[in-house]
Amino acid sequence: MARYKLTIEYDGTPYRGWQRQPDVPSVQEHLENALASFTQQRIETFVAGRTDAGVHARGQVVHCDLADTPDPFTVMQALNFYLREETICIVDTAQVEDSFNARTSATRREYLYHIINRRAPLALERDRAWHVIEPLDIEAMRAGAALLLGTHDFTSYRAAECQAKSPIRTLDRIDIAQENDRIYLHFAARSFLHHMVRNIVGTLRLVGGGKWQPKQVQEALEAHDRTAAGPTAAAHGLTLMHVSY
Amino acid sequence: MARYKLTIEYDGTPYRGWQRQPDVPSVQEHLENALASFTQQRIETFVAGRTDAGVHARGQVVHCDLADTPDPFTVMQALNFYLREETICIVDTAQVEDSFNARTSATRREYLYHIINRRAPLALERDRAWHVIEPLDIEAMRAGAALLLGTHDFTSYRAAECQAKSPIRTLDRIDIAQENDRIYLHFAARSFLHHMVRNIVGTLRLVGGGKWQPKQVQEALEAHDRTAAGPTAAAHGLTLMHVSY
Repeated sequence: MARYKLTIEYDGTPYRGWQRQPDVPSVQEHLENALASFTQQRIETFVAGRTDAGVHARGQVVHCDLADTPDPFTVMQALNFYLREETICIVDTAQVEDSFNARTSATRREYLYHIINRRAPLALERDRAWHVIEPLDIEAMRAGAALLLGTHDFTSYRAAECQAKSPIRTLDRIDIAQENDRIYLHFAARSFLHHMVRNIVGTLRLVGGGKWQPKQVQEALEAHDRTAAGPTAAAHGLTLMHVSY
Repeated sequence: MARYKLTIEYDGTPYRGWQRQPDVPSVQEHLENALASFTQQRIETFVAGRTDAGVHARGQVVHCDLADTPDPFTVMQALNFYLREETICIVDTAQVEDSFNARTSATRREYLYHIINRRAPLALERDRAWHVIEPLDIEAMRAGAALLLGTHDFTSYRAAECQAKSPIRTLDRIDIAQENDRIYLHFAARSFLHHMVRNIVGTLRLVGGGKWQPKQVQEALEAHDRTAAGPTAAAHGLTLMHVSY
């Protein structure tokens, strides 16, 4: 028996999110089916970050235990073979110590949120970016974002159904880059609450569009009330980029 | 009657290329159907660059004549409404002089070819990049590419079925950029022959993989024989980026 770390890329469009659920396609189900086809055993996987329906990943991380200790390259090649009909692929595999846990060992998670800010609808990035028509003021968004950096009670920015015990998180980075009509919001933290990135982006959009002053981002934070912050940004603009250990 | 210039973005995946053909979906067919829905007339469109099946566009240009001289913003909004189920959208519209011709007035066309150079298959860019497994030597590819710059008889790099009268073209730019496992080949010329970009990329891949020496790119060019050059790179790695007038 040995433990493996799998790094996974997926286009989340066809799936109802990471987590296995009855009667709907999930990334976890397809990955565990591929592991079952490869090993002829039922293999449980543990993930760094459960992504919502439509959210993408370039560097999702999973761990699992395999009985026959196959070499990591064989694991990658075999899983990619069984996943060939899916928009899921294993980009890296490594054998790790038994103490490694994809979720609890993670020290930093990085997400990228992509907005396209233009009048015309999207064709090439239809499932990859959030389409926002009203012109966004990036400097105002940056000013609002800066008020969220550091350690706070993020109750106002987490989903009502979030199961985390504590709403306290430390947001290490929100950088906002603009390139023509593309806006890229880079987030990093040890961990995030459910919908936290999307709720922050939905709120910063209000700031960018002039409906909110930047300081209202902080007022919403201090309200400790989900209804005080802005709406949830679209899932398909979000990509889990990297998990560090 | 007035002439309009339409700038169009599309994901080429669902279409059998630009050109209208019987019984298969094309970008032209969908655009002309949208124009017919908007104007209640049959409108013919003229395109800057006929793209092959699977090729994408960010800045394809079309001209057409409309009887009722609607304002350009209305044209864009109406066409995008009728195209809402397609991965085609109008990103800009302008009224232009009657002498404007999307194809013959163009002074420069820019294409981007995207390769992902890694072992793992593609998930997020499955329909947007060419997957090449063997490690590519970018410096060798640049050396080969440089031999194609300028004015040449590109017979060896055009499709056998290319209908252009002359095989002489002037290639103004081939820049190759690398970012981790992503390779971006930027092409610019006044005009290109059929399959010219993809045949050059397929040949440069031989150079990058060490199967060819860079100088063989020039030997193939001088052979004036399609069979002397390399194979055609995948359509889905190619995007028409911009047309200048």
